Amino acid sequence: MNIDHLGVAVKSLAAARSLYEDLGMKVLHEETVEGEQVRLAMVPLGESRIELLEATSPESPIARFIQKRGEGLHHVAVRVRDLAATVERLKKKGTRLVSDDIKVGAGGHLYVFVHPASAGGVLLELCEDPPQGV
Amino acid sequence: MNIDHLGVAVKSLAAARSLYEDLGMKVLHEETVEGEQVRLAMVPLGESRIELLEATSPESPIARFIQKRGEGLHHVAVRVRDLAATVERLKKKGTRLVSDDIKVGAGGHLYVFVHPASAGGVLLELCEDPPQGV
Repeated sequence: MNIDHLGVAVKSLAAARSLYEDLGMKVLHEETVEGEQVRLAMVPLGESRIELLEATSPESPIARFIQKRGEGLHHVAVRVRDLAATVERLKKKGTRLVSDDIKVGAGGHLYVFVHPASAGGVLLELCEDPPQGV
Repeated sequence: MNIDHLGVAVKSLAAARSLYEDLGMKVLHEETVEGEQVRLAMVPLGESRIELLEATSPESPIARFIQKRGEGLHHVAVRVRDLAATVERLKKKGTRLVSDDIKVGAGGHLYVFVHPASAGGVLLELCEDPPQGV
């Protein structure tokens, strides 16, 4: 297990990226994730990365987060080995998930969000790499 | 560079640790950091760790954070190689720091906080391991 990425909600990718560049990090490709109404820039950092997230619409979860709480840390994603087994175990413990079903991301990775009510206020994403050789 | 740790503000270490244990992580030693008025539990995670932070007094920065924003992600710490040079570079760029001076932590590590106003709303700690052989 490791931290896959940290999601940071920002008003402007262009404004937010400069600090990371000043720290000597590389801000990699930007991409738009239509389903989440978000445009993101990736900042690799060791075995993890920081994802800077800018809303592409006022109804985006990122726009609503910023309206309510301002810019800042939005979620943390932890990479696990067997997401299906992990989710089953958590459900048996009564852990609250944002959605019951495991979703498939743009790159083929699997993910699910644990509700902050079950994670000490943290929006915790659990993810698993895409199956090899597919 | 890598993510050294994520700080999570919680009301109760005892309540917060169970999710991480359910995920199969080990919650290591708890310790009290008097200077920060905080009691913390460490959860190693790959090359990083999660630090669960519980206030030991109502005036603790963690208590004030929870009063204002509720439990959740509090700060992210990034390990850098040469903190003094990094801080000089940031100061020249006009980056706002929480305090001008580099501080020495309990384990001998060096650290400084970048103000959220200069980091897209993120309370960003920069840290450096203690010098070897000292």
